[in-house]
Amino acid sequence: MIVVMQAGSTQEQIEHVTERIRSLGLSVHLSAGQFRTIIGAIGEKHPEHQSILEAIAGVEQVVPIMKPYKLASREFHAADSEVTIGNVTVGGGTVALIAGPCAVESRESLWAAAKAARAAGANILRGGAFKPRTSPYSFQGLGAEGLKMLREVGDELGMPIVTELVDVRDMPLVARYADMIQIGSRNAQNFILLSEVGKADKPVFLKRGYASTVREFLMSAEYVLSQGNPSVVLCERGIKTFEDELRYTFDVSAVPVIKHHTHLPVFVDPSHASGRREYVTALALAGVAAGADGVMVEVHACPEEALCDGPQALPPEMFAELVRQMDAVAAAIGRQRLGAGEAT
Amino acid sequence: MIVVMQAGSTQEQIEHVTERIRSLGLSVHLSAGQFRTIIGAIGEKHPEHQSILEAIAGVEQVVPIMKPYKLASREFHAADSEVTIGNVTVGGGTVALIAGPCAVESRESLWAAAKAARAAGANILRGGAFKPRTSPYSFQGLGAEGLKMLREVGDELGMPIVTELVDVRDMPLVARYADMIQIGSRNAQNFILLSEVGKADKPVFLKRGYASTVREFLMSAEYVLSQGNPSVVLCERGIKTFEDELRYTFDVSAVPVIKHHTHLPVFVDPSHASGRREYVTALALAGVAAGADGVMVEVHACPEEALCDGPQALPPEMFAELVRQMDAVAAAIGRQRLGAGEAT
Amino acid sequence: MIVVMQAGSTQEQIEHVTERIRSLGLSVHLSAGQFRTIIGAIGEKHPEHQSILEAIAGVEQVVPIMKPYKLASREFHAADSEVTIGNVTVGGGTVALIAGPCAVESRESLWAAAKAARAAGANILRGGAFKPRTSPYSFQGLGAEGLKMLREVGDELGMPIVTELVDVRDMPLVARYADMIQIGSRNAQNFILLSEVGKADKPVFLKRGYASTVREFLMSAEYVLSQGNPSVVLCERGIKTFEDELRYTFDVSAVPVIKHHTHLPVFVDPSHASGRREYVTALALAGVAAGADGVMVEVHACPEEALCDGPQALPPEMFAELVRQMDAVAAAIGRQRLGAGEAT
Amino acid sequence: MIVVMQAGSTQEQIEHVTERIRSLGLSVHLSAGQFRTIIGAIGEKHPEHQSILEAIAGVEQVVPIMKPYKLASREFHAADSEVTIGNVTVGGGTVALIAGPCAVESRESLWAAAKAARAAGANILRGGAFKPRTSPYSFQGLGAEGLKMLREVGDELGMPIVTELVDVRDMPLVARYADMIQIGSRNAQNFILLSEVGKADKPVFLKRGYASTVREFLMSAEYVLSQGNPSVVLCERGIKTFEDELRYTFDVSAVPVIKHHTHLPVFVDPSHASGRREYVTALALAGVAAGADGVMVEVHACPEEALCDGPQALPPEMFAELVRQMDAVAAAIGRQRLGAGEAT
Repeated sequence: MIVVMQAGSTQEQIEHVTERIRSLGLSVHLSAGQFRTIIGAIGEKHPEHQSILEAIAGVEQVVPIMKPYKLASREFHAADSEVTIGNVTVGGGTVALIAGPCAVESRESLWAAAKAARAAGANILRGGAFKPRTSPYSFQGLGAEGLKMLREVGDELGMPIVTELVDVRDMPLVARYADMIQIGSRNAQNFILLSEVGKADKPVFLKRGYASTVREFLMSAEYVLSQGNPSVVLCERGIKTFEDELRYTFDVSAVPVIKHHTHLPVFVDPSHASGRREYVTALALAGVAAGADGVMVEVHACPEEALCDGPQALPPEMFAELVRQMDAVAAAIGRQRLGAGEAT
Repeated sequence: MIVVMQAGSTQEQIEHVTERIRSLGLSVHLSAGQFRTIIGAIGEKHPEHQSILEAIAGVEQVVPIMKPYKLASREFHAADSEVTIGNVTVGGGTVALIAGPCAVESRESLWAAAKAARAAGANILRGGAFKPRTSPYSFQGLGAEGLKMLREVGDELGMPIVTELVDVRDMPLVARYADMIQIGSRNAQNFILLSEVGKADKPVFLKRGYASTVREFLMSAEYVLSQGNPSVVLCERGIKTFEDELRYTFDVSAVPVIKHHTHLPVFVDPSHASGRREYVTALALAGVAAGADGVMVEVHACPEEALCDGPQALPPEMFAELVRQMDAVAAAIGRQRLGAGEAT
Repeated sequence: MIVVMQAGSTQEQIEHVTERIRSLGLSVHLSAGQFRTIIGAIGEKHPEHQSILEAIAGVEQVVPIMKPYKLASREFHAADSEVTIGNVTVGGGTVALIAGPCAVESRESLWAAAKAARAAGANILRGGAFKPRTSPYSFQGLGAEGLKMLREVGDELGMPIVTELVDVRDMPLVARYADMIQIGSRNAQNFILLSEVGKADKPVFLKRGYASTVREFLMSAEYVLSQGNPSVVLCERGIKTFEDELRYTFDVSAVPVIKHHTHLPVFVDPSHASGRREYVTALALAGVAAGADGVMVEVHACPEEALCDGPQALPPEMFAELVRQMDAVAAAIGRQRLGAGEAT
Repeated sequence: MIVVMQAGSTQEQIEHVTERIRSLGLSVHLSAGQFRTIIGAIGEKHPEHQSILEAIAGVEQVVPIMKPYKLASREFHAADSEVTIGNVTVGGGTVALIAGPCAVESRESLWAAAKAARAAGANILRGGAFKPRTSPYSFQGLGAEGLKMLREVGDELGMPIVTELVDVRDMPLVARYADMIQIGSRNAQNFILLSEVGKADKPVFLKRGYASTVREFLMSAEYVLSQGNPSVVLCERGIKTFEDELRYTFDVSAVPVIKHHTHLPVFVDPSHASGRREYVTALALAGVAAGADGVMVEVHACPEEALCDGPQALPPEMFAELVRQMDAVAAAIGRQRLGAGEAT
């Protein structure tokens, strides 16, 4: 941590800062430049230290050197992590495919979407039973009934399932049915929910907050990891910017940047990033080309009938074509789709 | 709702859209322009309608005409709403003042901050017992013990108290102690929490999500209102932008824009918006000049000792000076600080 | 154009708006909904019409239906455009490669970079002779001397050259030497410069403004096209957002979105988007996978010696590896690098 | 400048960096922390130094300590600067008022707007003769004829005039007529134009780029100052964010932040920030309350007839009311409107 004193800070102020640094159990390294004094604070840091020092008179800024996350960092765990979801393991150099409807709407429509997804090569089935909706008047999901349908359809097709948890009180219920628990973008800084799934023995699929920096995203992962759950899969799904053609701006750079900083698998969700099915394939391929460990795509047998996010759902034939192209792009960078070549 | 068909959409596509609109219980108003067909959908809308129509082939865009919120809108309730918190009523043309420390850290420090805040003219005491912190390793608040301290200090000074709820399971506890329940910026789209405080019989202090548009902010308020709780106070507290001198960009325009669209009282929080005490006064005055119904400010008897957000806390003498200037600015636009002139 | 009247607008206001619409030479299509009156304005629009109508009392908003650009739109020109730069034609389904140093610094360093770029497969040589620098104290480029070096090296290697124009007064000089004229991101809304290159008989390489929406970007292209120059190549190079790990956020979605709206070739510039060489390859591949017609990459024989943007320049061996991977990704989506397979 | 080495950087890399720092004429201050080595580079910096060091292998980041601007900084010039425009001096603790139409459209409409502005208390007349318009098909201004009208009307009313320069070739023409030369938001990083007005002997009214950070804004001012022109007035006019209710987000914090860093006068332009007249007064008052040295407002005798930006123009009576409220808010913070109390 480096404390930059204001130009014109007094000797007394400098001494006060150095004393405060020592009182925090850190050692001091003083460097008087031409215009400013710079004070290095060396040792084991606590997250409060920065704001404590910034609050002192005469301090211009405090520059942290260490990253604020530990367990999520490559410095803590150099090799890529693998995460096992039911009978599927992601993160080992393959490209995995999660697909299914936005929301579970009925047994029939779920089955139709899941069957098509499975036939085309999807490894994991997705579907929302509890939906966080911007409007209180929108369809909020089928709840427990939806979870059961998802479990049954997953079992029939031999696919592990992932579904979103939105209420900490539903944790036991969701943990009973799901193979992986999703935390959605709007809950990316719901630290209560993050801590709770950190205590679960199910892997966590963590969507990036649409306004989280990569650093904040990794701090959210750290919340989960810090509670003892080592199985976290990250997912870039678009951020908010001034650009308004699509719902979000798909931050494809986040894939290599996150993989540089962390050992956790990184997926992309081109469906939520774009909100429009005609762009889903291009963004999925971009994500794979940039090094993503997997792709989550919304599939619906009849998007026009969807109660939720129909405009972004791929009908089965578009999804199958996406998988064909994805296979080729993965191969181009020396990877393979998870399970490609298996009989389905 | 207006459906804009793509240039070159077929007669069959247009007919399919008009049938679908009718099947939703809406009536159709067709308008064939030179290049495109525009289809008006008239009648009672449901939030799903837009995405259902957008999902249909041949549709370029769907432009909603009605606002997605109802109870929060001026069309539903034309006059300004007042909200009563303990013995204090805000929103009636006065400018109210909420002050106190970021977090409750100890009985002594809370008392010192609260006493100074009260002496300078604060109407309501704030203080966090449960703190949503970006790092899992940061101080997370004193919990129930903090709530009790807050209640006692508020009672001794005759100030109603506001404190943040972060976990839906703490609802009964927080409702027992607090006069107003705060929902923080990171939970602005935690719809579970919003619904829960919507069922409480305590007023709600709703911070804008740092990435919520005004429209999304009002949808969050709608969640609370739709559960039956009419007492919502809104608070602008800065949004995320590319500008990085301060922690957030204080969106002062949101004050008149929100007041244009809604009847609910609107406060500003210059402490979180700036993150730096030297800018708090200027932003507070800007908020009042723009028409805010109140200001929330962090005060600490000794900011350098604060366990949380010390750099943005005002020491008592700066806070007293802020109140003096605020009084003058409020008077300049024909308003008065709530309780100004009373003996304290 | 659709005029949405405020709820509660008077009959007089509605009549005033309809008269004003007719006075603009448009015909009127009235639709009285349950809560609001909607007025369609049909006919040939002028860009001023929207703000004229918005300025009238009782008008809530004016929703334009037609896109504001014409010559740039697919509706004007359905098929993909090709653009010829010297002996090279881009936009015909191939993936082209522009490479070279950020700035021309010396004959020797330019030659080294260009030779390496050519050997690896670059089609067009880039290099800045006039550099728009954020600081007035930074190296501003070699000017006319740099242009000459670029021309000579391009000729020796058989590569057309592209270089940036920053001053309208340098137009004759730059047009004499360059095969394609670049307009940089900071000048994306310098309408004087855009109009001037619109009158040139050289193709224009138009970078997206780092804060331009896709719509504004296409309006910048429209400026060039409207002056009679049909040869415009667009280039996505990153936009400003709250995310701060890299210099800009690479908006890969812009590639398919722009190609949906326009017929012009679309390139990507991963060097400026990221600012860091370790991410250039991943972003280049993402751009190609998303459908880009070409890639512009900065190459320097010794990045550490570069006077400008050294951290983002690829050394020759990294560039050659990028080309190899790019070839594979292009093939995966059924494309081929321009000139791949030729003897170089 | 502080160079942070990567964790695991080698001794050889560290030595290479220290040698490079010395070769740049700087002295080295080494500090080996527990996990990383930090290298201070002390002495006179050149703007290239940062990127040169960042380009070296083993370097994680380079943290600049000194601000990149000099002449614009308070460290160079501690006291507030005053700037004289014709017979008016701004920046001396008063609040000045610039008003007039967006564009000069005709002698009559200019006169009507100017007379109303003058009567209400405006100090300086604004009006665009050359308009930078997003669409090439929009009204582009009256050019030289407009300049003459502006000069005549200004002279008749005894008001200095400010008008925008968009083309460097018009510099002599604009300098002949205008008392102050405006650089618009879209040209905020048009370094050619900035350098040119830096050589003029007229004051410069510099609008913030709608995507410029405060730091970049001050670098734009530095361009002007570095050419010898000390008379620069800065103007906040809204930035681009995800919030879309208004055209831009008015960054009122920029006022105190800029005044903290620089000695130059800071104005606000609530007309362009909001784009809607009903919000102009609230934002103007917010700007004054936050410490602005002046306000620029668009006034039109009949906004509905305006060829440009009619929705944001204030009719005379709204402007007069704004001035009355502004006087009161200025008084509340111990300031006075420039010329208030004079007979007009």
